Amino acid sequence: MIRSLTLAALLATATALPAQTAPAPPPPIVTDARVAALRDAALTDNYAWEITEGLTTEIGQRLAATPAEARARDWAVRKLTAMGFKNVRVETFSMPVWTRGAESAEILAPFPQRLVVGALGNSASTGPEGITGEVIGFDSVDELRAAPDSAVRGKIVFIDNKMAPTQDGSGYGQFGAPRRQGPTIASMKGAIGIVVRSIGTDHHRNPHTGATGFANGARPIPAGALTIPDAEQLQRILKRGKPVRMHLTLVSNARPDGQSGNVVAEVPGRDPSLAPILVSGHLDSWDMGTGAIDDATGVAIAAAAAKRIMDTGQPLRTIRVVWFGAEEPGLFGGLDYRKRHGKEPHYAIMESDFGADRIWRVNFKLGEDRKQEARTIGAALAPLGIVTGSYEDADGSDIGPMIEDGLPAIGLSQDGTRYFDLHHTPDDTLDKVDPQQLRQNVAAWTTVLAVLSGGIEEPKARKRR
Amino acid sequence: MIRSLTLAALLATATALPAQTAPAPPPPIVTDARVAALRDAALTDNYAWEITEGLTTEIGQRLAATPAEARARDWAVRKLTAMGFKNVRVETFSMPVWTRGAESAEILAPFPQRLVVGALGNSASTGPEGITGEVIGFDSVDELRAAPDSAVRGKIVFIDNKMAPTQDGSGYGQFGAPRRQGPTIASMKGAIGIVVRSIGTDHHRNPHTGATGFANGARPIPAGALTIPDAEQLQRILKRGKPVRMHLTLVSNARPDGQSGNVVAEVPGRDPSLAPILVSGHLDSWDMGTGAIDDATGVAIAAAAAKRIMDTGQPLRTIRVVWFGAEEPGLFGGLDYRKRHGKEPHYAIMESDFGADRIWRVNFKLGEDRKQEARTIGAALAPLGIVTGSYEDADGSDIGPMIEDGLPAIGLSQDGTRYFDLHHTPDDTLDKVDPQQLRQNVAAWTTVLAVLSGGIEEPKARKRR
Repeated sequence: MIRSLTLAALLATATALPAQTAPAPPPPIVTDARVAALRDAALTDNYAWEITEGLTTEIGQRLAATPAEARARDWAVRKLTAMGFKNVRVETFSMPVWTRGAESAEILAPFPQRLVVGALGNSASTGPEGITGEVIGFDSVDELRAAPDSAVRGKIVFIDNKMAPTQDGSGYGQFGAPRRQGPTIASMKGAIGIVVRSIGTDHHRNPHTGATGFANGARPIPAGALTIPDAEQLQRILKRGKPVRMHLTLVSNARPDGQSGNVVAEVPGRDPSLAPILVSGHLDSWDMGTGAIDDATGVAIAAAAAKRIMDTGQPLRTIRVVWFGAEEPGLFGGLDYRKRHGKEPHYAIMESDFGADRIWRVNFKLGEDRKQEARTIGAALAPLGIVTGSYEDADGSDIGPMIEDGLPAIGLSQDGTRYFDLHHTPDDTLDKVDPQQLRQNVAAWTTVLAVLSGGIEEPKARKRR
Repeated sequence: MIRSLTLAALLATATALPAQTAPAPPPPIVTDARVAALRDAALTDNYAWEITEGLTTEIGQRLAATPAEARARDWAVRKLTAMGFKNVRVETFSMPVWTRGAESAEILAPFPQRLVVGALGNSASTGPEGITGEVIGFDSVDELRAAPDSAVRGKIVFIDNKMAPTQDGSGYGQFGAPRRQGPTIASMKGAIGIVVRSIGTDHHRNPHTGATGFANGARPIPAGALTIPDAEQLQRILKRGKPVRMHLTLVSNARPDGQSGNVVAEVPGRDPSLAPILVSGHLDSWDMGTGAIDDATGVAIAAAAAKRIMDTGQPLRTIRVVWFGAEEPGLFGGLDYRKRHGKEPHYAIMESDFGADRIWRVNFKLGEDRKQEARTIGAALAPLGIVTGSYEDADGSDIGPMIEDGLPAIGLSQDGTRYFDLHHTPDDTLDKVDPQQLRQNVAAWTTVLAVLSGGIEEPKARKRR
């Protein structure tokens, strides 16, 4: 919003200035009629819905390195093959696997009642008998860090930490700290367990899970997330000033010998010597919901856009669709792809991993020499209500490390206002996907691919030659 | 809305007609200034919030005839006594008690995955080992009823049944049929269990529980509610046309020798020979949430309004506050009160049991001879945006049987648009209560009591005499 207003203000000023001091207007950018037609046709897309509906219904949750994720890979290979993609294959890799068991949290005193809790990924297991301890509450990771070890030792730490919705999802970095760092700090101070207020923006009795970890040699301890209403309840109970005792059960299992994999499929380009375009999402999900917005829609959008190009004809450059495995526990799929292919040239890399509400912004990191190409894409996206953000920055989850390596990237930003209501919760289910906004996503991706792919040769034209 | 438009149209027409044919306008009703002042002061009420917050925080869920409900009665006696009510007492009664154990639903084939389920009250127990069977789906109770027994025998019945929000909550009667009648019909047709789509209007992974029963000598079977996203998932899976096998675990315990009770408190009137006014809500709740909107707010509103009258002075008529026990499993508290006191005269009976969103309508069943009193109340409520509905009908849950017996009643209708998003779910927690709308409720109840109580004698005035 601010960007647009500034630009509008500048243009208004420019018009008012004498002609000789006004900067030369940029050359006009007219969107190629075939690109515009592909974009507009994608607004009636059904491929992305079919993939999202099929994957979430026929597989459901797809926790990394579990049999459910393996079934999802089989499903993906069948689906992508049936859609007509070429070179459909799985690139497998090994990784540790963490799975969830029984979970409960019970206030024993002063006000006996049960709270709703879910273990964070990589939590230690309490065993079925659970643990019991006094609760000590903090409002932030910094407060916990500042507390003397003696105040924390032998206790169950609780970190309250409010997160508010933002369109760009930027709150997740800052407000995710209790989940990411809290367990390590609590463990190093001698806590026997930790529960954090769910890193989310809703008010439902559904915990937000997500990966945690134990750094600096910290001994793993049981670590869970209370739902937001339960965290508020615990906060109210603590504020009564009486000692609060909790019985916490977070059963889980961790073993080193899991297997996951990336599913790869291609629309071969007319010139195989040219660097491919990578479009992606991640196939795995957390285990609480059916992984609809995180990230069935992501793999669906990427594949649907590539399929729409394929339906039109053969692109000059190869489009490579990758459905990454095991993003959630720590970008395992992205890192495996990087190890195998990260040194190969890529024309651009893209990932959809922020739900499927409408795309409101495009960011580019294609380099200064490709700015005109970026402007062409930005102009073609504008009729979808998409604003051009940065020319120097783009992001993605699995592809993040490769962007840091310097591979050229484009980021299409979904509206994240309600994303953290659902993210990593049991509520991440198909009914949360808005089919019309999903289509706008496909239209945006199709537009980008139509420009990037270097010209699509239609079947008839090929025949005529 | 329609009522108002009709009235406006009539008035417009009346003005246009010759004077001799126009009906005589009704006599003007001017609200007593002290009633208006009490009403407006109640818009800053804090008593109702304190009760709601205290009960849901310090007790939490209050399942009928359990130790939690007994703790709630103790809490209630302490609270009502501290607020200055007189004759605070518990009227106990015996009843059966049903409690919930472990619950899960798992699709074994064709698409293995777990669904979220909650047992309905009075469900039979599957035992910890659960039951396994093929699922047969129906879109309504009527479809189930029409099915041949042979199609149902040995199977797990699933009833899908969509409910949409209504302001007056009228959908609950019709769309609640699968929960109320489904288990009996399924049992009589030889089903081994039943799961219904939750009787609710939300899309969260929280089941809606509620009482069911087995009529006509039907053998109790395990009966649960799937969350709405899970019911939609099961429907999609069934539509694939392959046999669907489910493993269903609904552990519960039922025993005949429970105890519950009604908590009674009074603001004694100046003339003890006059019939009291009964204002009420129910103290028990389902066990999934903390019973905030169902019905901590109800008991809070009734008591807060009575307290506001008490703070002003002594009413002519006694105001009796009743916090009923064990409403949820079948109006046990209301029926016990009726047995003890139902033959005694009551000046009016009222109950708040539909959340705490703003009151939009008032209904009266005071009899034709008290219509002017009803109109006086309606006029005093109008500035709160409350429309007068019926003069012939009022309702209530616990007080329903006594209304049918002929006791005079007034019903203040909360807006139910979001009530069935939360009703009987884990999501019924304090954060769902809007403090400002709660105050409007208290203002409406205070207004009604200010008129009904027959004149409040202020302490100073009493001294002067």
